[in-house]
Amino acid sequence: MSWPRIASSSLKQPGRSINSYIRKKGSVGEGTPAAGDCYLTHIRDFSTTNNLTQHGLGTINQTNLGSRGIRVAPQYQFPSSAAERILEDSDSDSVYENVRLAGLKPTGPNEKPRIVVLGTGWAACRLLKGLDTNIYDAVCISPRNHMVFTPLLASTCVGTLEFRSVAEPVTQIQSALASSPNSYFYLASCIGIDMEKHEVFCEAVGNVGQSQEPYRFTVSYDKLVIATGSEPLTFNINGVKENAYFLREVTHAQEIRRKILLNLMLAENPGLPEEERKRLLHCVVIGGGPTGVEFSGELSDFIMRDVRERFSHVKDDVKVTVIEANEILSSFDIGLREYATRHLTKNGVQLMRGIVKEVHNKKIVLNDGTEVPYGLLVWSTGVGPSQLVKSFDVPKSPGGRIGVDEWLRVPSVEDVYALGDCAGFLEQTGRPVLPALAQVAERQGKFLVELINKIGKENGGKAYSARGIPMGDPFVYKHIGSMASVGRFKALVDLRESKDAKGVSLAGFTSWLIWRSAYLTRVVSWRNRFYVAVNWATTLVFGRDNSRIG
Amino acid sequence: MSWPRIASSSLKQPGRSINSYIRKKGSVGEGTPAAGDCYLTHIRDFSTTNNLTQHGLGTINQTNLGSRGIRVAPQYQFPSSAAERILEDSDSDSVYENVRLAGLKPTGPNEKPRIVVLGTGWAACRLLKGLDTNIYDAVCISPRNHMVFTPLLASTCVGTLEFRSVAEPVTQIQSALASSPNSYFYLASCIGIDMEKHEVFCEAVGNVGQSQEPYRFTVSYDKLVIATGSEPLTFNINGVKENAYFLREVTHAQEIRRKILLNLMLAENPGLPEEERKRLLHCVVIGGGPTGVEFSGELSDFIMRDVRERFSHVKDDVKVTVIEANEILSSFDIGLREYATRHLTKNGVQLMRGIVKEVHNKKIVLNDGTEVPYGLLVWSTGVGPSQLVKSFDVPKSPGGRIGVDEWLRVPSVEDVYALGDCAGFLEQTGRPVLPALAQVAERQGKFLVELINKIGKENGGKAYSARGIPMGDPFVYKHIGSMASVGRFKALVDLRESKDAKGVSLAGFTSWLIWRSAYLTRVVSWRNRFYVAVNWATTLVFGRDNSRIG
Repeated sequence: MSWPRIASSSLKQPGRSINSYIRKKGSVGEGTPAAGDCYLTHIRDFSTTNNLTQHGLGTINQTNLGSRGIRVAPQYQFPSSAAERILEDSDSDSVYENVRLAGLKPTGPNEKPRIVVLGTGWAACRLLKGLDTNIYDAVCISPRNHMVFTPLLASTCVGTLEFRSVAEPVTQIQSALASSPNSYFYLASCIGIDMEKHEVFCEAVGNVGQSQEPYRFTVSYDKLVIATGSEPLTFNINGVKENAYFLREVTHAQEIRRKILLNLMLAENPGLPEEERKRLLHCVVIGGGPTGVEFSGELSDFIMRDVRERFSHVKDDVKVTVIEANEILSSFDIGLREYATRHLTKNGVQLMRGIVKEVHNKKIVLNDGTEVPYGLLVWSTGVGPSQLVKSFDVPKSPGGRIGVDEWLRVPSVEDVYALGDCAGFLEQTGRPVLPALAQVAERQGKFLVELINKIGKENGGKAYSARGIPMGDPFVYKHIGSMASVGRFKALVDLRESKDAKGVSLAGFTSWLIWRSAYLTRVVSWRNRFYVAVNWATTLVFGRDNSRIG
Repeated sequence: MSWPRIASSSLKQPGRSINSYIRKKGSVGEGTPAAGDCYLTHIRDFSTTNNLTQHGLGTINQTNLGSRGIRVAPQYQFPSSAAERILEDSDSDSVYENVRLAGLKPTGPNEKPRIVVLGTGWAACRLLKGLDTNIYDAVCISPRNHMVFTPLLASTCVGTLEFRSVAEPVTQIQSALASSPNSYFYLASCIGIDMEKHEVFCEAVGNVGQSQEPYRFTVSYDKLVIATGSEPLTFNINGVKENAYFLREVTHAQEIRRKILLNLMLAENPGLPEEERKRLLHCVVIGGGPTGVEFSGELSDFIMRDVRERFSHVKDDVKVTVIEANEILSSFDIGLREYATRHLTKNGVQLMRGIVKEVHNKKIVLNDGTEVPYGLLVWSTGVGPSQLVKSFDVPKSPGGRIGVDEWLRVPSVEDVYALGDCAGFLEQTGRPVLPALAQVAERQGKFLVELINKIGKENGGKAYSARGIPMGDPFVYKHIGSMASVGRFKALVDLRESKDAKGVSLAGFTSWLIWRSAYLTRVVSWRNRFYVAVNWATTLVFGRDNSRIG
């Protein structure tokens, strides 16, 4: 057994500062540990118990916990109260009950292999959708129970689409998670992985159990797929996290929507100074990539069509400004960029060159000292590796993502794959890191699920059993094209394979039709396809909805 | 001019404790006050400045501020920082700028009379919908910008209906609020009324203006309609407000939905003790009135149909319990009550007699000592007067509502009307206080808007100018019938005029059809009628949606 044994007396020594370790039930002094039934205790420091780290098991601190160990994200600090209790009364078995770390044990020889998928984004969901559940049991772990149809998220902010229309429950995408006896969806965050023991450490969302502490558990895997995505880049600029809205989750879109409607209504308050009214009604978008452009396009469309009629007292003071350090839509064809610039400017969107220096409560300050007062600030300057990914102690790709080979494997460990925004090709593969796009993630999900199904069919599904199986063709990404909407009935479609290639580019109503139909056919379920169509039709007939709920 | 004058020297006297008063610009020492442009300052006590109260102007404290004055709700305390600043430097005019209380001035002789409506519930919205905007300018003041279609709210909790389908923006109900130059909707709470000066004191929702304090303003009225509704009764039971969910706003339904889905998912966490899993999955409803019964009916239907399939690992532990001190649906016909009891019990809803003594984080304690662990607690034991209504110093109806006469006027003051849940007939009218029902509020709104339109046509729209105008027939309430859904395809319809009368009662599928179609035709806009129909159809075809957003 690989669980460390600690004499209980050592726990009582004053002056120690062991942070935490994980051990098996009964491992204190005597008794046989039961498989998969482990207990978590907390002590004040890790340094005096190096014997604990030999199994690559890391929780809490940032020490590298063995050759194939992966560190737990540093923001997850186990609380110290349990440690205090144990230090006071480490002989009482009942105390350990409170901090037991239960979980899903490794699969037995007569059970199906278990694939654990971290995340519910494009990559994870595409993979789950195609998984052969006759071969595998699946466990999906994510703090979000639905996939977000991100390309349509900007439309929900202004009420063109309902929020529910762009969210698809993961149990609808892969029904085995809900109905199969050994498949599960866990609403939890991954806080660490023991890649040698093939075990994931999780923290449940919300408050369960007897204690006030977060509920933690472990899940053993035969195959692990890491698809935990990325985090928005803030470049360490002060005030961004506190004051800006991101646009990556449905909750973000809901918050933006509430803020827009709130500001429109507050601006009507009688006696408000003109300056303050204008501030409230100034929407600033930082970043001129597809998300920033789509959001400002939707917003200007909303202002031109709906605000004029429904908030007529303040309509002339509503302004949208996009601030970009370089040029907008820099990955698009020059003709399309010019088209987008013309179209947005015509619709009242101000395009501004600038670099943000700091963000305050009601204004941003640019590098050249310009102050820009705002009522709403949306931040979309791209994404980078998450805290969790940064904490993983595996070789990284250029840019700090989890490094993978051509088959999306994490080559330094066995049975671990990574894909989507959190993964990038290792430098030695000679391939470039792919852009953080839904298109890439979706294609990788499709590739990997076929590979994993193939491995399973050839009896390589269990842990450490895929070694001799040929991998087949590696993953090759072929860029189909880029699309961005720039407002009502107008979109850009760039069908070139890369930035420097020649190819077809379209702008205008035809592209908008392509954009809408391409997205419509990709919305995962028929329920949501139907709803999106109904939403679009309703918006055309009745205008947007502007009730402010919550 | 009715604004009090105060010598600035008195402000500086130490030992004073004047809480606040309102005075005109320039009234400190010299200068002519500008009409409608008033300033708020704060001093430590009210008692030494009784001359301030002669005009019935009340802010902050609980003193009765004149014969027709209405007190400000005690929970609205003006912050003391402005007072401190003034006490330190009361000669500087710039200090007063920070605490100016601007607002809508009284209407001029060439302007249309202004009707101010407080609230966006059934009564207020029905009234606004019918208002003749050729005669009146309308100002609606409410912390909520939409009407909630309350009878369908229970359905949104479990995903049968979308949230947006049961909310209707008030500017859609009365478009003049958005488009007419002198009509407005203000997202604000009323915090006090000066009924002699015909002025409403408001506090904006959210943070506007330079200071961190809430933005306050005044609105003068020619006619005032109070329709601010009621508050849930908690009987001063400890822990209700902290732990229970109410079901009165769309945000409440959203919170309940999130909690149900969260608990269903948390209950799947591996290793959770059985007791804790059962607690998480126990939904307790306090109160067996129509709301409680409809909610538990929807919930049991959701469990029977959707949970079994989508959360199959935990389906057997989900339970719904309704706790009621007397009998469920006590206002309904005995046959219907028995039908409801049978139907709910058959669908797994446990009906329990009991009186709640106290509410804890994860359990409630009944009067007989029984402890009931819960994962979700919904509280629907009826409603009572709000804090704001309690703070008004006008004669009350039995039960503490704002007392009105047969024409829904507040008879002790001029140009003030009250209706819906916040109003009740004065005892001297010899009429009973009507139940807090949408039906009553909607009927009263219809009655009152016709009366107010009539008064306007006869040139009585302006303040103090309706005296000689005959009122016409008083308001008479005729109960059409009560309806309650008890789950899928089953509803109760009680068409008796009163509890003791004879009449038609229906239960079952026919009533469900009546219930659905009656509600469908009452949803205010065609947009929402369409959406509700689409939601119902989609639920029938695809099942309920169970993504958990936020």
